[in-house]
Amino acid sequence: MAISLRRSPPRGHSELRSATNIEDAVMSYVRNMWYAAAWSDEVPPGVLFHRTYLEEPVLIYRRGDGVAAAISNRCPHRFAPLHMGKLIGDNVECPYHGLVFNSQGACVGNPHGSGVTPKAATARPYPLVERHNVLWIWMGDPAIANPELIVDFGFMTDTENWSTIYGYIHLKANYELVIDNLTDLSHAPFVHEGLLESRDVCKGKFKLSRDGDHAKTVNWCPGIAPPPFFEMLKGTQEFKDESGLVDHWQDMTYDPPGCMNTLYGITRRGRPREEGMATLNPNLVTPETSKSTHYFWAGSRNFSLNDSVVNEQFRRGYDYAFQFQDRPILEGVQANMGDASLNDLEPVLLINDGCSVHARRVMERRRKEEALERTHGK
Amino acid sequence: MAISLRRSPPRGHSELRSATNIEDAVMSYVRNMWYAAAWSDEVPPGVLFHRTYLEEPVLIYRRGDGVAAAISNRCPHRFAPLHMGKLIGDNVECPYHGLVFNSQGACVGNPHGSGVTPKAATARPYPLVERHNVLWIWMGDPAIANPELIVDFGFMTDTENWSTIYGYIHLKANYELVIDNLTDLSHAPFVHEGLLESRDVCKGKFKLSRDGDHAKTVNWCPGIAPPPFFEMLKGTQEFKDESGLVDHWQDMTYDPPGCMNTLYGITRRGRPREEGMATLNPNLVTPETSKSTHYFWAGSRNFSLNDSVVNEQFRRGYDYAFQFQDRPILEGVQANMGDASLNDLEPVLLINDGCSVHARRVMERRRKEEALERTHGK
Amino acid sequence: MAISLRRSPPRGHSELRSATNIEDAVMSYVRNMWYAAAWSDEVPPGVLFHRTYLEEPVLIYRRGDGVAAAISNRCPHRFAPLHMGKLIGDNVECPYHGLVFNSQGACVGNPHGSGVTPKAATARPYPLVERHNVLWIWMGDPAIANPELIVDFGFMTDTENWSTIYGYIHLKANYELVIDNLTDLSHAPFVHEGLLESRDVCKGKFKLSRDGDHAKTVNWCPGIAPPPFFEMLKGTQEFKDESGLVDHWQDMTYDPPGCMNTLYGITRRGRPREEGMATLNPNLVTPETSKSTHYFWAGSRNFSLNDSVVNEQFRRGYDYAFQFQDRPILEGVQANMGDASLNDLEPVLLINDGCSVHARRVMERRRKEEALERTHGK
Ligand code: FES
Ligand code: FES
Ligand code: FES
Repeated sequence: MAISLRRSPPRGHSELRSATNIEDAVMSYVRNMWYAAAWSDEVPPGVLFHRTYLEEPVLIYRRGDGVAAAISNRCPHRFAPLHMGKLIGDNVECPYHGLVFNSQGACVGNPHGSGVTPKAATARPYPLVERHNVLWIWMGDPAIANPELIVDFGFMTDTENWSTIYGYIHLKANYELVIDNLTDLSHAPFVHEGLLESRDVCKGKFKLSRDGDHAKTVNWCPGIAPPPFFEMLKGTQEFKDESGLVDHWQDMTYDPPGCMNTLYGITRRGRPREEGMATLNPNLVTPETSKSTHYFWAGSRNFSLNDSVVNEQFRRGYDYAFQFQDRPILEGVQANMGDASLNDLEPVLLINDGCSVHARRVMERRRKEEALERTHGK
Repeated sequence: MAISLRRSPPRGHSELRSATNIEDAVMSYVRNMWYAAAWSDEVPPGVLFHRTYLEEPVLIYRRGDGVAAAISNRCPHRFAPLHMGKLIGDNVECPYHGLVFNSQGACVGNPHGSGVTPKAATARPYPLVERHNVLWIWMGDPAIANPELIVDFGFMTDTENWSTIYGYIHLKANYELVIDNLTDLSHAPFVHEGLLESRDVCKGKFKLSRDGDHAKTVNWCPGIAPPPFFEMLKGTQEFKDESGLVDHWQDMTYDPPGCMNTLYGITRRGRPREEGMATLNPNLVTPETSKSTHYFWAGSRNFSLNDSVVNEQFRRGYDYAFQFQDRPILEGVQANMGDASLNDLEPVLLINDGCSVHARRVMERRRKEEALERTHGK
Repeated sequence: MAISLRRSPPRGHSELRSATNIEDAVMSYVRNMWYAAAWSDEVPPGVLFHRTYLEEPVLIYRRGDGVAAAISNRCPHRFAPLHMGKLIGDNVECPYHGLVFNSQGACVGNPHGSGVTPKAATARPYPLVERHNVLWIWMGDPAIANPELIVDFGFMTDTENWSTIYGYIHLKANYELVIDNLTDLSHAPFVHEGLLESRDVCKGKFKLSRDGDHAKTVNWCPGIAPPPFFEMLKGTQEFKDESGLVDHWQDMTYDPPGCMNTLYGITRRGRPREEGMATLNPNLVTPETSKSTHYFWAGSRNFSLNDSVVNEQFRRGYDYAFQFQDRPILEGVQANMGDASLNDLEPVLLINDGCSVHARRVMERRRKEEALERTHGK
């Protein structure tokens, strides 16, 4: 893993503008966390992949041994985008004047003059860990980048028990609006009406529990008509009682910064969940800028394993839901908010907002902690 | 009418940023006035119409009894655009989590939990009055929204004496630039050369008179060739003297915020206006943002009544004039001004600027008055 | 020449926002210099040409005697773009209300009222000089606009000894980034790999010399394979020694604000330059806004004179190099920098940066001098 970096990183874009006092910290990003950067297969061997996280341009590529590494996509000489350059073995050549950087961002080649490589010429390296089909990036202090903090989505690569489909979309909305969306599943019967859920779930037994920064919501809906999505994917005949009803759950876990896992399933009335159809749906949210977000979604199911027709239905259903149902609402909310913050606009609270409020508080506390550390030293 | 609202409205977008002192007030909007919001037929029954006024997103729709109402298009829960939701009877269901609002903006339905509707969950209502084919909106304090203040454009619906065509265009220019344009008709022979007016009108007898905030300009042009537009619409043979000349008037009334009525006509030399061809042309200007404007135009004529061919010629002529002659000039002026105000750039004054200067002074005084009220209470 | 203007110009856009202290001056433009405004043939007789320089909209046109003049493209009345008006003899009629301006920007006609032309109604005139196929504009104090300060590119019109092709492109990058590019030719073997240069030039004998604000870099590359561009244009057989090698030079002169002349050539090993193939390549860089630049390029050669096939190859080669090789890098650098300045981002210095650093220092000194003059009077 490319996480053995100890030196203090050079200043990045967002740090230049970042908070020098606690008040300003509200608008900054939490840096010392693992963010989803890309699906593993978005970065095939030989490709200089680039994406912006927390307003910083990042280059990601694989070394010859297959290990993926992330360094600044901004050459320290005159700031050319390195992804426009060349991958030469394990190194990258800048497209502008040809400085060569290794996968730790160190300058290892200078074609000009005596060929001495300036010591300061470092493309800031970012700790990057590949796990469960996701490349996770650490945008903060490399010295405390602990891979054990990565949320466990092991089922995504447990092909024996789960079949998983996944995708990526780009949203023109602040990342916390996307987290609001996913931590409050009561939107599903409205935004995804007739597709994912029926309104029966509004009357489920809803419960929020917290464990430190981690939170979980449970919405237990015994004896309702099966949600349309399960009907569509496989049929639910085997789980219905004589009235055509099933037990349904619509749960969700939250971990900061933006790791939501939604758990949908049905089972025969009164029977344990294990006997039913279940889906686990990681939703990973990473800020690009203050008004745009990378959104990685996946769906793992414990039924119709390796059935490529169901794969396609699942993928099409989710893609439709996110692209054509969530996206216009989220981008509409962002447009409606303009430059105002959520609190500026004094939102009304509903019963299902608990987890969204929790997530915002966790992130706000972390922003303040990081601002304090920057101000007072560590 | 939906104007019986007494409670103090929740804070809107532009109020958040609005003036806290007199200096800043120059950039804010006048709120306690009736603005043209839409033509009546832009809001047919069953439709959730939305438009932004003074930087605030507004939803307009008709109740079952046909009465149109306006409420904020921003749900007070998580700020989703209500126009993406559903019209259910007289109420609107939010597309995001399903709160239901009535035409006064009160929350009357909550599908979640116990179903209690939070008292604070109000979509800000705006007084709205339908009159003479126009929906007029009041963006300020509902308590003082007096429909008697609406400028009388009764001729627009007096089909016995007038035939009226009308349209809407969106302009990428500040609304005061559009008011400048319409309160100074000396632009017509240049911008609308060969279409509306000839240069003969430059030498007319020009007079500006004021009555409080109301102003009127008269440009009396006796014994000139008839303007091309009258020629085109109907022919002017019957009004010409032996030299082919007519008496022409090109007048205009201004009422704040942006209600201009231009009065064009010709008559036989020395004969009263009543015997001639006359057009009354309401031009209603409403700010969308500081750099974009809703522009409602109409043309009423006292000749060729109910003649659908003349209707079409009239409409096409005006649409061409506004879209292809005024628009590029106005958007060019806005681009040339950038973020500077008119006064920053020290404009030279010409003889015909009197009414534009009057209109800007009226609006500036009103902005300051409203800023004072906000600061010192009412 | 239209440079006999003595009166103090009215305030322009960028002056409104311009520095009132030395710190802010860093972001302003140097005004008292000659900037390339257009190629001569971009302004044919009868045309109202317009372009924005240093954030000020400018109109350029030819009088009946063929002399080109530049005045503000913003009418002093209500700021309409004059290029949308009419050229009438030597004068321009404003498209909005018909004021007429002469080529010095003085108002010489008013169609309204008594016809008096308001004295203050001046479209700011800019000194403009046509020389060597370029229209040069002076954006500062007309009283000190000395045409002798224009950099001599006489070879561009010396058709007896040189054949010249030229072009214009618009870049979405700050002008100093474009100057950086051209004052540091070490980018050529990377950005223009396989087209202009090979990497052999990285090991040339590089030398920077300064003479006041003027600077020159020499990169002498004896005994290398001829650069691909010369091969492509004409073939280099006659200059090669038995090993296929030639002597090559890749030099550059800089004069402020953004006048670079690159000098490329080859000759037979050990023989004087005069016997070889030489190209002189003016590159003139003029700011449009802080993030966009006008870039005028030319190529003069001393071989295959008047050969239209070589003309086309030369033009196509350069157009490709600038449009498809330099442009994406420069716009990528600008995007990578956002609103940060070069110094904010602490660039690493390489051996070839000397002339770029020189150019930035010259411009910074001039900005500060001009800011001081504005603050303390002259
Ligand atoms: S910008 Fe990368 S080497 Fe110059
Ligand atoms: S945003 Fe309208 S109900 Fe939640
Ligand atoms: S804007 Fe030019 S004459 Fe009015």
